[in-house]
Amino acid sequence: MKKIAVLGSTGSIGTSTLDIVGRLGDDYVVTGLAAGSNVPLLLEQVRRFQPKIVSLKTEEEALRFKKELDGSVIRVVSGPEGAEEVARFEENEVVVAAITGIEGLRPTAAAVESGVRVALANKESMVVGGAILRSKAASSGAEIIPVDSEHSGIFQCLAKERREHVKKAILTASGGPFFRTPLSAIKAKTVAEALAHPRWKMGRKVTIDSATLMNKGLELIEARWLFDLLPEELDILIHPQSIVHSLVEMRDGSTLAQLSITDMRVPIQYALTYPERETSGLPALELSRVRSLEFFEVDEARYPLIGYARHALKEGQSLPVVLNAANEVAVEAFLDRRIGFSDIVAVVGGVLDRHQVGEAETLEAVLAIDRETRVQSENFIKRRK
Amino acid sequence: MKKIAVLGSTGSIGTSTLDIVGRLGDDYVVTGLAAGSNVPLLLEQVRRFQPKIVSLKTEEEALRFKKELDGSVIRVVSGPEGAEEVARFEENEVVVAAITGIEGLRPTAAAVESGVRVALANKESMVVGGAILRSKAASSGAEIIPVDSEHSGIFQCLAKERREHVKKAILTASGGPFFRTPLSAIKAKTVAEALAHPRWKMGRKVTIDSATLMNKGLELIEARWLFDLLPEELDILIHPQSIVHSLVEMRDGSTLAQLSITDMRVPIQYALTYPERETSGLPALELSRVRSLEFFEVDEARYPLIGYARHALKEGQSLPVVLNAANEVAVEAFLDRRIGFSDIVAVVGGVLDRHQVGEAETLEAVLAIDRETRVQSENFIKRRK
Repeated sequence: MKKIAVLGSTGSIGTSTLDIVGRLGDDYVVTGLAAGSNVPLLLEQVRRFQPKIVSLKTEEEALRFKKELDGSVIRVVSGPEGAEEVARFEENEVVVAAITGIEGLRPTAAAVESGVRVALANKESMVVGGAILRSKAASSGAEIIPVDSEHSGIFQCLAKERREHVKKAILTASGGPFFRTPLSAIKAKTVAEALAHPRWKMGRKVTIDSATLMNKGLELIEARWLFDLLPEELDILIHPQSIVHSLVEMRDGSTLAQLSITDMRVPIQYALTYPERETSGLPALELSRVRSLEFFEVDEARYPLIGYARHALKEGQSLPVVLNAANEVAVEAFLDRRIGFSDIVAVVGGVLDRHQVGEAETLEAVLAIDRETRVQSENFIKRRK
Repeated sequence: MKKIAVLGSTGSIGTSTLDIVGRLGDDYVVTGLAAGSNVPLLLEQVRRFQPKIVSLKTEEEALRFKKELDGSVIRVVSGPEGAEEVARFEENEVVVAAITGIEGLRPTAAAVESGVRVALANKESMVVGGAILRSKAASSGAEIIPVDSEHSGIFQCLAKERREHVKKAILTASGGPFFRTPLSAIKAKTVAEALAHPRWKMGRKVTIDSATLMNKGLELIEARWLFDLLPEELDILIHPQSIVHSLVEMRDGSTLAQLSITDMRVPIQYALTYPERETSGLPALELSRVRSLEFFEVDEARYPLIGYARHALKEGQSLPVVLNAANEVAVEAFLDRRIGFSDIVAVVGGVLDRHQVGEAETLEAVLAIDRETRVQSENFIKRRK
């Protein structure tokens, strides 16, 4: 039996995870759920999966929730500490870390510290604290299995290959909704247009990051830490069909690739069942129906954030933290219609350019740089108006 | 150091193997060579690689060859027994079994019996004697590593996957030179047209087998024995670019694939260096230059031999032996311009239809069925005229 806690249970990855847990049958049970703001959905999840601990965003929500449950013995906690408590719950064997953004850092770190398997969907925590999480995992014995489709693909291709056999890992990107839009027309793109991802159904933040390709920039940094690869051993290819998720080129000229239908439940399930594979009941990939798989180089004129991400990947230290924080603020401002689509690049670039690189070797240092960058990013946005 | 014997050293796979051995450097040495009819090339190979034993096709050739070597201590043998002697040479650690057709069966079996690593290019031996070779390998401890690009790909994708995780292995086929030829125009295709393979540079026999897709039919049967897969777990996709060599679909919806440039030296080197991978100096695969990878179902109206091969795969026993022998005779007759391109199908189909299925559980039984089928096939060809 595998006992699973889900951090971010009401989000896109969280709901897909619970769908998979339901499909996998009685061998997989839910120990804890840390929710976002969708309380009615959490109530449904609790009734179906019977966890022993749940966490809500605020104390007020937690109190109301307790009333709804009326007489149940489930432990109800709240706030950031609540999510961490779910992450550390002693019965956990697997923690699915699926809180989006920097908010996920402390709960993810708590899961890693507790030495269980961490199914990692919260890529931002690896981006800002990759070295920290790796060293915590080395101490605790935690096993970090990626949930991002690209990283799950790399993980599968690497299998028993030796590190020195690997020449390069290539992450694919769909190119998002504006891959074929004339460059001059991208500036005026609306929130609705940017959210209309051609392939993947995902949360709002990551969908915008896909349109700017920042998602792939963050994933490069994530891959650097997950697989101990050098910046020059990491590459991106645009692959509009999103069927090949990643490729690993070996030094002997052989390349291994991982493919599947465009459904996050495939990598989520793998992270839960590894090293086993279970029949999923998901539709099979039919390549003769897809017919053609295309691959293109990344055009940095179309996706300027990739240049910034590569710079942060190479320089490390505080830069990935700043990159991520400025991007989170800019994407939120775009989703709130406070800035235009192309302003995301201006904000991230402007904030990064003004940043003095420094150390970021503890969670506290990372969170301090993150907070400071958010203020600077908001100021940058205000000044531009 | 790895000590390597090459059976079929003057053929397409043999020369590529020696090219790779040369590139791999001093850690790889040649113990023995069994040649085809290209004596001048063998002489060159002997001078460069200094084997301890060589085998020629005929005693006469062997005598002349000895004179050429003048005073050398190399042991020179000849005939089918000569090739077997090279295969059994006591210093061998790897035997590259690259004699084409049924002729390769006894030398390949000799290599398997001697318990070394067998880098298997002679697919026909697996087709006609898969069960026999597997049981010999189980007794001797021989390790059979495939050299066919498709099977090398499957071998790499399987890595540490458990047998029960595998749902299906898919071999790709370029479709050969007539993939887009109107069906009515195929009948009149000449030897030169059939030999003009769009992707692979290979020997004549296998190039014709690629035009009829029989090559893929034989490879299905080979894969059945190499990987212990059931007929219904094996499939073919037409992939004109010949970049993806094979795919393995897992039961959880994930598919792993192996890709490389279209160069047999990639799988040959892998079979020699496995489980290591060495830098090859071969050009890297650049997917953004290939741009598009296409996949199509197999149209059995275009490639009727696939239906016969699937039947032989399913029924087993003597049928694969007959399939292979009738095909070898028919391809030779086509290359000799004694029959037309579409007559290959007629001969294989006609001979198979008349065959009474029986056991083929020893090498002797296999070779007897092979001989008998060759006579029948020649008679069938004569009767048609």
